[in-house]
Amino acid sequence: MSATRYTYLGPEGTFTEAALRTLPEAATRELVPMVSVPAALDAVRNGDAAAALVPIENSVEGGVTATLDELAAGEPLMIYREVLLPIAFALLVRPGTELSSVKTVTGHPVAQPQVRNWLRTHLPDALWESAASNADGARLVQEGKYDAAFAGEFAAVTYGLEPLVTEIHDAKNAETRFVLVGRPARPAAPTGADKTSVVIWLGGDDRPGALLELLQEFAVRGVNLMLIQSRPTGAGIGNYCFAVDAEGHISERRVAEALMGLKRICPQVRFLGSYPRAGVSPEEVEPPRPGTSDEEFTAASDWLVRSMDGRA
Amino acid sequence: MSATRYTYLGPEGTFTEAALRTLPEAATRELVPMVSVPAALDAVRNGDAAAALVPIENSVEGGVTATLDELAAGEPLMIYREVLLPIAFALLVRPGTELSSVKTVTGHPVAQPQVRNWLRTHLPDALWESAASNADGARLVQEGKYDAAFAGEFAAVTYGLEPLVTEIHDAKNAETRFVLVGRPARPAAPTGADKTSVVIWLGGDDRPGALLELLQEFAVRGVNLMLIQSRPTGAGIGNYCFAVDAEGHISERRVAEALMGLKRICPQVRFLGSYPRAGVSPEEVEPPRPGTSDEEFTAASDWLVRSMDGRA
Amino acid sequence: MSATRYTYLGPEGTFTEAALRTLPEAATRELVPMVSVPAALDAVRNGDAAAALVPIENSVEGGVTATLDELAAGEPLMIYREVLLPIAFALLVRPGTELSSVKTVTGHPVAQPQVRNWLRTHLPDALWESAASNADGARLVQEGKYDAAFAGEFAAVTYGLEPLVTEIHDAKNAETRFVLVGRPARPAAPTGADKTSVVIWLGGDDRPGALLELLQEFAVRGVNLMLIQSRPTGAGIGNYCFAVDAEGHISERRVAEALMGLKRICPQVRFLGSYPRAGVSPEEVEPPRPGTSDEEFTAASDWLVRSMDGRA
Amino acid sequence: MSATRYTYLGPEGTFTEAALRTLPEAATRELVPMVSVPAALDAVRNGDAAAALVPIENSVEGGVTATLDELAAGEPLMIYREVLLPIAFALLVRPGTELSSVKTVTGHPVAQPQVRNWLRTHLPDALWESAASNADGARLVQEGKYDAAFAGEFAAVTYGLEPLVTEIHDAKNAETRFVLVGRPARPAAPTGADKTSVVIWLGGDDRPGALLELLQEFAVRGVNLMLIQSRPTGAGIGNYCFAVDAEGHISERRVAEALMGLKRICPQVRFLGSYPRAGVSPEEVEPPRPGTSDEEFTAASDWLVRSMDGRA
Repeated sequence: MSATRYTYLGPEGTFTEAALRTLPEAATRELVPMVSVPAALDAVRNGDAAAALVPIENSVEGGVTATLDELAAGEPLMIYREVLLPIAFALLVRPGTELSSVKTVTGHPVAQPQVRNWLRTHLPDALWESAASNADGARLVQEGKYDAAFAGEFAAVTYGLEPLVTEIHDAKNAETRFVLVGRPARPAAPTGADKTSVVIWLGGDDRPGALLELLQEFAVRGVNLMLIQSRPTGAGIGNYCFAVDAEGHISERRVAEALMGLKRICPQVRFLGSYPRAGVSPEEVEPPRPGTSDEEFTAASDWLVRSMDGRA
Repeated sequence: MSATRYTYLGPEGTFTEAALRTLPEAATRELVPMVSVPAALDAVRNGDAAAALVPIENSVEGGVTATLDELAAGEPLMIYREVLLPIAFALLVRPGTELSSVKTVTGHPVAQPQVRNWLRTHLPDALWESAASNADGARLVQEGKYDAAFAGEFAAVTYGLEPLVTEIHDAKNAETRFVLVGRPARPAAPTGADKTSVVIWLGGDDRPGALLELLQEFAVRGVNLMLIQSRPTGAGIGNYCFAVDAEGHISERRVAEALMGLKRICPQVRFLGSYPRAGVSPEEVEPPRPGTSDEEFTAASDWLVRSMDGRA
Repeated sequence: MSATRYTYLGPEGTFTEAALRTLPEAATRELVPMVSVPAALDAVRNGDAAAALVPIENSVEGGVTATLDELAAGEPLMIYREVLLPIAFALLVRPGTELSSVKTVTGHPVAQPQVRNWLRTHLPDALWESAASNADGARLVQEGKYDAAFAGEFAAVTYGLEPLVTEIHDAKNAETRFVLVGRPARPAAPTGADKTSVVIWLGGDDRPGALLELLQEFAVRGVNLMLIQSRPTGAGIGNYCFAVDAEGHISERRVAEALMGLKRICPQVRFLGSYPRAGVSPEEVEPPRPGTSDEEFTAASDWLVRSMDGRA
Repeated sequence: MSATRYTYLGPEGTFTEAALRTLPEAATRELVPMVSVPAALDAVRNGDAAAALVPIENSVEGGVTATLDELAAGEPLMIYREVLLPIAFALLVRPGTELSSVKTVTGHPVAQPQVRNWLRTHLPDALWESAASNADGARLVQEGKYDAAFAGEFAAVTYGLEPLVTEIHDAKNAETRFVLVGRPARPAAPTGADKTSVVIWLGGDDRPGALLELLQEFAVRGVNLMLIQSRPTGAGIGNYCFAVDAEGHISERRVAEALMGLKRICPQVRFLGSYPRAGVSPEEVEPPRPGTSDEEFTAASDWLVRSMDGRA
């Protein structure tokens, strides 16, 4: 095991690597690309790596199911950090290639819907074929198999290509959220702008109101939800668990009480971590709803103790 | 101050006295009738009595507003016991009086609607006049001012009267609930069939959803409500507080957490006590809703602590 | 039957008469005092009067139970108007009486708690005895039975008394709400500042969440509640129905849908009328919550019809 | 345009084709495989086909995002039928191939996680490479590029292969749900076992309680949800719409009222159809919650009309 090794969803030159390199500590770690999300996470599980960076949510494609499913099942892991990366593609070509001569393009399958409109406008006759990753697409262009690849501009250097067009993206504000995942440990202290992730199972039987009850455990304690995604449990059509991101840190009382409420009413809850929100400073976070601050929780506890002593 | 003196809503011969005498400890106390609910409770507040028995809810007339308002305002008091008493009236007359010669009847104003139908059938021409209490009505019959009084059968002896007709009551199952009130102290230990009473203020401003929020604090923790009564706060039409009876004991986790939730979101909560339910044995009480037992609360707390340590 | 006769809770000289006289139409009606709320309402039921004015809510004493219970039971009646009257008492005495010589005072039992503090301060030794009404108390002072009576200042003339002290009231902003009640008919058209009253039964069996469901029928359609009062159904301790005042008019879609929702889930709902709010102009009423205006209801209906035709 | 042409997610030999052939009408239609879900649906949009069969939900992989996103955006389409197909893979090989000689295997990327455990046990050393579809994998085996392909057993004939092992699937009860999609029209009449699909947007601004409100529109009318899936709206991380399947038919009053409620409070709602539930007979469907049947809705409407006429 190596405390200095971080894995990531490879190969080199992907957006995941770019996201990983935005973390200051990445400079002092050995960064190891892996062929898949499960492979990156298994390296953490079995001690070959201290942490793994993997994509978890994309503003165009939605939740990254491989990551969600890996975090929900198997040996527990925890999220310690998130990274938001704007996603803009570059059209990478071998030096000297002109746009008019691009007949075949490649890239990761999830890249295709993100550049579809651009392709229709600028390369209406080019043939698309999928590659295993954007970086792999770049490699295939280097090898001459395709004329151009959609990838991050930063991948050009690695594969000896040049960016013919940059900032390509059909959707404005496209970005991907990545998480740094490690073995379970004590979460970092709250920063004032934190997020808590859990996976929640609703029970094997058919309980139509169960999702409503789940949301009320958060709502009644004033805990805002930022994301809720259903994932099949594998027990057949209609059986789902929910990956939920909530505002706040497990050490805050309203969050802790909501989590305990879920733990009591749901057959299974998996805590995935409390960690700083990317791109949001504590000043930008709305204060807790009246009645849900830690001070108010403490005052209510004190009042209860006094009431039980006949001193309220 | 006398630890052996109990006051009650008098005069002698009322249903309140009958209710008080159902308590075993009454046999060893000095029982002192008072002219009003405030007088009975003030004697407790100023130390002249250890406790007071007063009516709080009547199955025909509803909440006893004098009691609710006294408990909600002024120096705090606590409920330690409740007594349920079936209410059936006797028509008390001077010995020898026949029904056909009854021309005038009396009784407490709240007795009148409870015997209205009986009167219409059996004494359609009799004139009703209100007395200050049922017992006072009996006294006035003794003095010859009226021909008959509606009162508890037990009042006959006190006033030298005889019950001409008994078991009179328009409504089946009529009963009154009384509470034994003392100065605040530690509530009795839970019995498994307990009730918790609180008064809750919703805030001076206009908050239409506030009552819904109040009920959700109970509902989300599986705490059933047995009674909810609005009382004006005195701040003008439309300003109400709520007297609430909930199933369970303040020392049970689901009740405690609900009370703390109310304390956090409401401007004022007054704890009125946790005490055994009258007429219900622990075997008859439904078990807590799944996920809300003390064991499940404890297990969830343990899970949270482990989660915060990375050991869940 | 007389279409020109209005009954009211008498006797002459009560606040109810004063409230009735604030209605312009009262000038052209025969105003008949009745001995009780049931008597006033029965006159309407049996056709002896076109309408009755009775008190329904007092900012100090709460709901007027006789009125609530009469409206909830028996042959249906409907509310057509409400009147808000500030309540201030005058101390009425025979001409020439000085405060220092007042040894006995009287008034209606509900007046007593409203002037208790004033009495304690200004007449600490005076003896209180209850009268059948404030006006009746004035009459008894006229007859010399008591030295002074608490009543409306307007009652002085009727009984040949003079107001020794005026504007007496322990609570600021004390007021009473009265309603004009008639036989059921089509409600008046909405004014933009309306109120709808209903009585709702929750079912005979023990349903802890039933009140929450009731409130959600209103909440989900954005209908604000102004008052909710529990009244015993007469079926035993713990069996309640609820008198509810909601903002808006039955002809408004959000109100109509909420009422139908209640009708579907509750064993019984009694519509008591939609009528203009006293003391509130349409300009002062908050607009409906987004998504709940009549226009939005109509647009949603249109969309549904188009959807069912495959044209949405 | 051809009323007799149905497209489906091809190529020939996929599970989608097998699902399509379970529909009786398929026998009399021209069945045309398309290279992608968008292509299959665009053929319907532009009139080249009457309907398209596409996968929408998989018990292992979850929602089929391409289908969900296509139905949520672009020119409206409607679902008219659903098909549930158990998913079991066969390992297809060229005739005569033995298991011990299989060194390379292929299949659609979503097949891989569904047979991962089987591979680990029976072919631990075989190399996996992804194909564009399971059928395409079979073709590549036919061409000799790989030794074996995971596909439906029915694909063997098409590609001149033989099933070496059948009924392969890591998860029990694995199945996929397909939908038959056409241009918007009047939905089929209710069968008593129906499902209604909608896509709901929650508004661009940050509204933490919006999902809870959405669920309450269904819950308050007793409409059970069978599936809720979030999909990014493309407006950036954290912006989601929800694809929802609800029990019941748009022509049922409780469903219609819930849909109108959503339409009023949400910026956009897209009705995707009401259609018979696959694999469930009307006898197996739970009756509507008390108070939510069509008869009860009609009775409540009648009561409202009578109330507005003063005849309730």
